[in-house]
Amino acid sequence: MRVAAFQLAAGLGSPDARLAEIDSCMASAAGADLAVFPELAVTGYGAGPAIAESAADPQQALAPLQAMVDQHGVAMVTGLALRADDGGLANAAAMLRPGAAPALYAKRMLYGDYEKGLFAAGRAEPPIVEIGGLACGVLVCFDVEFPELVRQLALRGAAAVIVPTALPRSVGARFIAERVVPVRAFENQLFIVYADHCSADFRFAYQGLSSIVAPDGSVLAAAGDSDAAMLVADLDPSAYADCRAQNPYLAELLQAGLAPKQD
Amino acid sequence: MRVAAFQLAAGLGSPDARLAEIDSCMASAAGADLAVFPELAVTGYGAGPAIAESAADPQQALAPLQAMVDQHGVAMVTGLALRADDGGLANAAAMLRPGAAPALYAKRMLYGDYEKGLFAAGRAEPPIVEIGGLACGVLVCFDVEFPELVRQLALRGAAAVIVPTALPRSVGARFIAERVVPVRAFENQLFIVYADHCSADFRFAYQGLSSIVAPDGSVLAAAGDSDAAMLVADLDPSAYADCRAQNPYLAELLQAGLAPKQD
Repeated sequence: MRVAAFQLAAGLGSPDARLAEIDSCMASAAGADLAVFPELAVTGYGAGPAIAESAADPQQALAPLQAMVDQHGVAMVTGLALRADDGGLANAAAMLRPGAAPALYAKRMLYGDYEKGLFAAGRAEPPIVEIGGLACGVLVCFDVEFPELVRQLALRGAAAVIVPTALPRSVGARFIAERVVPVRAFENQLFIVYADHCSADFRFAYQGLSSIVAPDGSVLAAAGDSDAAMLVADLDPSAYADCRAQNPYLAELLQAGLAPKQD
Repeated sequence: MRVAAFQLAAGLGSPDARLAEIDSCMASAAGADLAVFPELAVTGYGAGPAIAESAADPQQALAPLQAMVDQHGVAMVTGLALRADDGGLANAAAMLRPGAAPALYAKRMLYGDYEKGLFAAGRAEPPIVEIGGLACGVLVCFDVEFPELVRQLALRGAAAVIVPTALPRSVGARFIAERVVPVRAFENQLFIVYADHCSADFRFAYQGLSSIVAPDGSVLAAAGDSDAAMLVADLDPSAYADCRAQNPYLAELLQAGLAPKQD
């Protein structure tokens, strides 16, 4: 499965300008199976109350994105805000495939006062969909820092976890991007695609350091900490059979009866 | 709390020779609160059936070690084989303090055919004891590669996790020592002391790379991949308050209702 992950500049401007940039990225991703964009890619992460004001229901919000997916013939995983039936706002991820119904996820682990003030936390486990022959799960940003949430997806059969993210520069941010993300891949023997913003908007400066990491923890592609970037990698689980045999974490966890209870 | 961790050469020889080396290390650790030794430090990790043949019940096996602890006035955490009442053999860790009763743990995640052929897997969670003012939990080697097992200790209040280990050179071993161990510390905001063997015995070659890591994932002290070493560090949780505030994993996990059920 070929994936293209986009590290987007935070200062792209209005949602219309951002949708145009996403469409341009989708054209660049021609030939890939999947294109991945950051958390809240459509509005920008730091847009604050404007995120809530412009948020639409899934049918309306996803229409322009699904049109790009169908036009370019490339699946997309992106972050965006979605208005739920009950009026609550989700910090969501959408998994869109050509000619298929969307799969949606609402971020469970909201980070800090900014997100908790804007969004309602999701309660449901994320979908797993097949893209390019690979079972792909999804998480959003802070979610992936919790080993429990990646483990749930691994135990449910995910071979890759796609992570739209918005990682502000802070104490520990570089450690999260460069250390935690590869360890999540290794300890579950799966791929992780981590797509972040870079530079700054009116509220936050972002860490960049988007990456695509393999089941052995190796970095297949990585962006720098400043500039927009397109990362491309081919995800082939069969290339990591030796590492999986040497580090059979899921099988041993299940055998020891220590796997978390699945709801 | 001052800790001294010892990376021991695998070719030290008989249990008597190894106990003499441990005693010599304990003398070197004078002034520290705690000395840490590798997995199965008393017999060596690769001694095979000889481990079972020489294994004694806790009272007999711990007597010479407790004598060193009392003589030098330094607590000890070490791996050793212990014969259980039911005749089973535990790949155990003992936490010994001057003038106090020992706290014992049987490794739950046995690694591979070699360990599974020699030992019975433990089922109980490890003890947490106070050493030098710090709540210290214990795990053995492969245990620490499972985020679930470190998380249990963190949720039970451990500020440090002491890990006697025997990490053979293999696919992923360097990643485990240098990447997984610091991430376990960071994601739980606690200290980890990881004491490995180095060089080789008749069965295995060891990775070395013992380390003492801080709650922000930084390495306070680390050994090389070849030679015996004594690592010393002062563990002061108050030095990591900023990192803990920025990365409040335990509090957020509990608040989201995603913490694992405690037995």
